[in-house]
Amino acid sequence: MTKEHDLINRYFAPLCSPSDAAPAFGLLDDTAILTPTKDHQLLVTTDALVAGVHFFAHDMPGSIAHKALAVNVSDIVAKGGHPGSYVLTIALPKNIEPNWLQEFANGLGDAQSEYGCQLIGGDTVVTSGPLMISITLLGKISTGKMVRRKGARPGDVVFVSGTIGDAALGLLLRENDKRMARVALDETHSAHLLERYLRPRPRIKLAPIIAAHASAALDISDGLVGDFGKLCTASHVSGTIEEARVPLSDAAISALAHQPDLMETILSGGDDYEVLMTIPADLADEFEQQAGNVTRIGKIGTQRDGITVVDADGQPLELAQSAYDHFGDIER
Amino acid sequence: MTKEHDLINRYFAPLCSPSDAAPAFGLLDDTAILTPTKDHQLLVTTDALVAGVHFFAHDMPGSIAHKALAVNVSDIVAKGGHPGSYVLTIALPKNIEPNWLQEFANGLGDAQSEYGCQLIGGDTVVTSGPLMISITLLGKISTGKMVRRKGARPGDVVFVSGTIGDAALGLLLRENDKRMARVALDETHSAHLLERYLRPRPRIKLAPIIAAHASAALDISDGLVGDFGKLCTASHVSGTIEEARVPLSDAAISALAHQPDLMETILSGGDDYEVLMTIPADLADEFEQQAGNVTRIGKIGTQRDGITVVDADGQPLELAQSAYDHFGDIER
Repeated sequence: MTKEHDLINRYFAPLCSPSDAAPAFGLLDDTAILTPTKDHQLLVTTDALVAGVHFFAHDMPGSIAHKALAVNVSDIVAKGGHPGSYVLTIALPKNIEPNWLQEFANGLGDAQSEYGCQLIGGDTVVTSGPLMISITLLGKISTGKMVRRKGARPGDVVFVSGTIGDAALGLLLRENDKRMARVALDETHSAHLLERYLRPRPRIKLAPIIAAHASAALDISDGLVGDFGKLCTASHVSGTIEEARVPLSDAAISALAHQPDLMETILSGGDDYEVLMTIPADLADEFEQQAGNVTRIGKIGTQRDGITVVDADGQPLELAQSAYDHFGDIER
Repeated sequence: MTKEHDLINRYFAPLCSPSDAAPAFGLLDDTAILTPTKDHQLLVTTDALVAGVHFFAHDMPGSIAHKALAVNVSDIVAKGGHPGSYVLTIALPKNIEPNWLQEFANGLGDAQSEYGCQLIGGDTVVTSGPLMISITLLGKISTGKMVRRKGARPGDVVFVSGTIGDAALGLLLRENDKRMARVALDETHSAHLLERYLRPRPRIKLAPIIAAHASAALDISDGLVGDFGKLCTASHVSGTIEEARVPLSDAAISALAHQPDLMETILSGGDDYEVLMTIPADLADEFEQQAGNVTRIGKIGTQRDGITVVDADGQPLELAQSAYDHFGDIER
């Protein structure tokens, strides 16, 4: 048998069903089998992470594994779905250590337990380039209940989950950005921001509440403002976000107090993996109550397009860059 | 909008359903939706190709695209399934030419037409390393009809589709291997072997016949002997292949005439993407008739394990390397 076979057997087979059981048959068949459940549709999403672009090569292997699954879970959750089976493709540099692989597999195991997912297949290849992880995640949703980007209507209330901008500030910290050097953060706050960058936490409990209430939704991966723009464009509507209502962590508030121009990074930075949702006005109270940890930040307008972020006085803000582009390096 | 968005819109959105239609919604939603059909199960497979390992970086972009989809189709076909929707992750070197992308997308379009597949999602990332393509392909199969590696029984007849070894010889040609230098192949034969390496042709019409007749099957990607070993190991049976019965192309016969020791490459080389099947003896005639282009090459034995390749005199052959390991470079 090949080295690849040994590697799969040792690190990845323990994450899936045994050799005599569907869906994965111990990864022995190159192909997994799923039996659809009645009254459900299947959601399919895929997201890849490349070392030096989406994470730092020296990040802890368990964190990389967690993030690789979490960013996919985030997409399914934002559509109102329940994440399930996934396949993993991993391109490994030749000098990878067995220890690294074991920690990666452990992290993946923890993440799949956390999100109720299971590995059903994959491919392991070697590369002369950077480590890369690609996951395709399948989810399920009650038939007809998928929430799309398209669907926001004039008058809908705009909500976000959690807090915004932490991960983008965490990335600045990781990059030793000079704007952060001027910010005297205490250790707890620094740790919070770094953790938010490293370990996105998709709001898995929110999914059924999104499915029941939202007219449109997406997960915030490229920054609040940019992703709000995408939702409004897809829905052919205009929209407004009130800067003062955007929910911030204590760490972000502390950073802002030292360096007010970080607000732009908070609004436009990436990697939040929170959910941006529009809720019909008559359902907003009920949604808020059921969801918890969501905040009203704006409203869908009556125009066909255009988004605005307004300050506390209702004046539109000018933003230099509206979205974070992952299509470039973090390690410049 | 980002460069990634433009790239997806330009090259990949034309390969999938428009923005107002399931399953892909013009790739606008990060998530596709599939509605399972009654009485079917879903097959899931994934295979990745890396430049310098699974193909040559200067191969024609259309061929690379075709191969990336075909190797996945091959897995679904060998399980008796019908290929359908797929997601594509592509890691692009920064210096990639728009022309390259256009030819790649065209090749992918041709391949999905040929195999009846459709793009439903994907991710596009940049890498400082070699080009890499990862496809996850979903297929469907009548409930309970998936053919596994496990399932071969004593007395079953071993069949293969097509001819064996062409792709492995084609790879030797590409690598200017000295064994091939001594082989004076005419142009037609050389072209045939190169084409078989570059453009695997999964036997898509064979799938329902496999589902109806085979006790076990897999696609031959790592060489006939190695993959026969995997099938027998999974089935807990022994098996014999008769070397003289292994179907060869005219090109392979011609190469062998000059250089008899190429037989080992033919039996153990990779990339055939033909199907290896075991058929209960009482169904073998019917199977052969319905399938066409399949050849009886051996039999499943009565032991619990062990495979043998016998020569024309019934003597077991010694093979130095039983399987091709893709877990290494082609460009050394």
